[in-house]
Amino acid sequence: MAQADIALIGLAVMGQNIVLNMNDHGFVVCAFNRTVSKVHDFLNNEAKGTKVIGAESLEDMVSKLKKPRRIVLLVKAGQAVDDFIDKLVPLLEAGDIIIDGGNSEYRDTTRRCRSLEKKKLLFVGSGVSGGEEGARYGPSLMPGGHVAAWPHIKDIFQSIAAKVGTGEPCCDWVGDEGAGHFVKMVHNGIEYGDMQLICEAYHLMKDVLGMEHDEMAEEFNKWNKTELDSFLIEITANILKFRDPTGTHLLPQIRDSAGQKGTGKWTAISALEYGTPVTLIAGASLSVLSRMRGWWPAEPGRASGQSCGETRPSGTSEALYASKIISYAQGFMLLRQAAKEFGWSLNYGAIALMWRGGCIIRSVFLGKIGEAFDRDAELQNLLLDKFFSDAVHECQASWRRAVSVGVQQGIPMPCFTTALSFYDGYRHAMLPANLLQAQRDYFGAHTYELLSKPGQHVHTNWTGTGGNVSSSSYNA
Amino acid sequence: MAQADIALIGLAVMGQNIVLNMNDHGFVVCAFNRTVSKVHDFLNNEAKGTKVIGAESLEDMVSKLKKPRRIVLLVKAGQAVDDFIDKLVPLLEAGDIIIDGGNSEYRDTTRRCRSLEKKKLLFVGSGVSGGEEGARYGPSLMPGGHVAAWPHIKDIFQSIAAKVGTGEPCCDWVGDEGAGHFVKMVHNGIEYGDMQLICEAYHLMKDVLGMEHDEMAEEFNKWNKTELDSFLIEITANILKFRDPTGTHLLPQIRDSAGQKGTGKWTAISALEYGTPVTLIAGASLSVLSRMRGWWPAEPGRASGQSCGETRPSGTSEALYASKIISYAQGFMLLRQAAKEFGWSLNYGAIALMWRGGCIIRSVFLGKIGEAFDRDAELQNLLLDKFFSDAVHECQASWRRAVSVGVQQGIPMPCFTTALSFYDGYRHAMLPANLLQAQRDYFGAHTYELLSKPGQHVHTNWTGTGGNVSSSSYNA
Repeated sequence: MAQADIALIGLAVMGQNIVLNMNDHGFVVCAFNRTVSKVHDFLNNEAKGTKVIGAESLEDMVSKLKKPRRIVLLVKAGQAVDDFIDKLVPLLEAGDIIIDGGNSEYRDTTRRCRSLEKKKLLFVGSGVSGGEEGARYGPSLMPGGHVAAWPHIKDIFQSIAAKVGTGEPCCDWVGDEGAGHFVKMVHNGIEYGDMQLICEAYHLMKDVLGMEHDEMAEEFNKWNKTELDSFLIEITANILKFRDPTGTHLLPQIRDSAGQKGTGKWTAISALEYGTPVTLIAGASLSVLSRMRGWWPAEPGRASGQSCGETRPSGTSEALYASKIISYAQGFMLLRQAAKEFGWSLNYGAIALMWRGGCIIRSVFLGKIGEAFDRDAELQNLLLDKFFSDAVHECQASWRRAVSVGVQQGIPMPCFTTALSFYDGYRHAMLPANLLQAQRDYFGAHTYELLSKPGQHVHTNWTGTGGNVSSSSYNA
Repeated sequence: MAQADIALIGLAVMGQNIVLNMNDHGFVVCAFNRTVSKVHDFLNNEAKGTKVIGAESLEDMVSKLKKPRRIVLLVKAGQAVDDFIDKLVPLLEAGDIIIDGGNSEYRDTTRRCRSLEKKKLLFVGSGVSGGEEGARYGPSLMPGGHVAAWPHIKDIFQSIAAKVGTGEPCCDWVGDEGAGHFVKMVHNGIEYGDMQLICEAYHLMKDVLGMEHDEMAEEFNKWNKTELDSFLIEITANILKFRDPTGTHLLPQIRDSAGQKGTGKWTAISALEYGTPVTLIAGASLSVLSRMRGWWPAEPGRASGQSCGETRPSGTSEALYASKIISYAQGFMLLRQAAKEFGWSLNYGAIALMWRGGCIIRSVFLGKIGEAFDRDAELQNLLLDKFFSDAVHECQASWRRAVSVGVQQGIPMPCFTTALSFYDGYRHAMLPANLLQAQRDYFGAHTYELLSKPGQHVHTNWTGTGGNVSSSSYNA
């Protein structure tokens, strides 16, 4: 007998917590897992005393669902998603809904939308952000795909989503096809960039300013009461002061391996594919430097840098804030470019608000981005909004000081420096690429434009040799 | 009657010059072009008085070729290559050779190798570098694909290739499948990085040191007598002093549009795909900042930076040299990673020597790289070779000074700074990624390793809430 409002497949910690979250909001959830014993363990432990029911098989699960059936997949991205879809299709009817809540690649989501459409099934690829905590008590949800599914899942999604302000849910319909997963991908890239930026601030404070962990925790707590107020700053303060059972700080004991789920990588690849200079996220993703630890002869002393005698985190918070603004400006540039590439209409302000609660990058800052798009829905770049351009301008001097001290002291700052290069490039009326164009025309007859004659491509025979053909590509 | 040694399709400037180059070395070349009138124009002008013959059609061209037939395609990369291959296949016999000398994507070359193998035809994807000049008087050639084709093309290829030292040709067999085009792709990425590095040096000298164009030309000429001795430094000096017919310097009149053929982009995408931190080339490729010129309110004065009063290019050449070493170290890391991914056996020293002449990045520097691999064929990273590690170490102080002055003065230096960040990260025994691991475990239960227990992944319940399951990915 159909009794469940929705089913969820995949009982790792994220799946378990989302099931419990749905249960809290009065929905009857049917839980299933490939390894069925996990279902029993879950029902006998985390889900004990809830209205959650279990399934012994996919057939059993489907039979327990009200129609249109709503099935959430929270399995490993990739083949596992296709495998479950293949197994589910024969068990479902026209109008049933499959929701992929994993970290799927947006192209796969677009492909699955198109193939399930032929089978009259509705597919939704939803970004789910917030980790354990968010999944349990209110994630940020970014659903996209077949909009016809939205009316059937809106209530559940917006009920379990995080709430901000006067109760607005951090969940709204994002757009067609893979738009939800694309936005989640960019979110993850931004998240990865935010974390790297905090690591660079930590490195400067630890090695250049010689601050103690409790001292740094205190500093981050202070920052959390400023425009930097955010979840990541808050947990960083908690991490910095966290001590193991022996009373020793845990953080310095942790190995600096550079692991990531690869979503920062996807964001960077998209940035390259669509020609958008998302340099900070790309730099952060490529900063897998510690993979190479040990390849380099250890140089203690020089390697760790020497304190320059400063006793206050001079400019560090400004470097962090200004770099963060650049990173978000780049991220929204990529969203705008993708909307153009795929013909999606994205509501940038709504996206900022979806991220404002529940997810890892939740912050007061995202509210400011929402306001910027309220002021101008067509805003081409965050750096063109007065609030943000003024903010970066005010941070500028301190930002440059912090970076130049770090440069002198030998602190790697891939994100602080790439953000500053972007800002300096962006605000320049003229860049030295004129030399690059001249070089390309010199050796490859690629032609160039004169400032006085834009749009007109000319070739100079710089050497007086070579063919007399001017070309910018090989045309047979 | 078969009279031609080889045919070439595609008479843009590159194709014309390679035909003339082959003719100079005594080979009879049959030239063809989709627009046949171009063949006639070529024979009546550039090729007048040579042994070059023309073809009116592909059938005509094939009939004029000795066997095994050797046909070079120098057409626009992509569909045009497949189109010509499809038209040629029915006209050819087992053992005939098709050579793609365009800027094809290495994956396409691998695909074409495999499909032509089924048709008993030999396929070669060859990188051709050197632009107009190189094509005409000696390019760098990087052939890969079906090794069975090598004996039939070796003589022609090595004859027309650039020669260095005591006459060694800048051409050797690279490896299987798309290896030749992969190496060319990395070469182009390195080339793009070299050009960006020179642009940054130019920007510092022009805007921070307030040098005049002739003064800068002089400086570059000086550098060309040092370890920086290279084609790009040489032409930069020529470009800096080049004046238009009115006697005005041409360079400042050229528009700073950021055009590239996209091969730097491919290198960066490969770097991300194969997890190799090729940060300089990636940063250079993403530096398409001037595309956005005009989006930012013009800020004359502040935008162009103020001279800090230094009158000598303090540290600029050291910044350039050290950054260049980092860029090449990264490029060879990518080649090593690709060899692992695709099972290619690449001779790194030979690759460095193939680039030493003919191509745009030709330099004394590449000879030094060859020597490093002579000292240790298994060298894991250029920065581990004493010559290069000493060189970077000696440049360090000046490099840091130049970068920190540029940072203070507002000069965008994406490549100088990313190279320095890489170096500082690389030489650090410990990076702040421990905080990143702690953050990921805090919000996502991703686990981390203790320095004292490598390989053992532990999870700390930092908050005391959330499920009790520890996971590093979703497993259903």
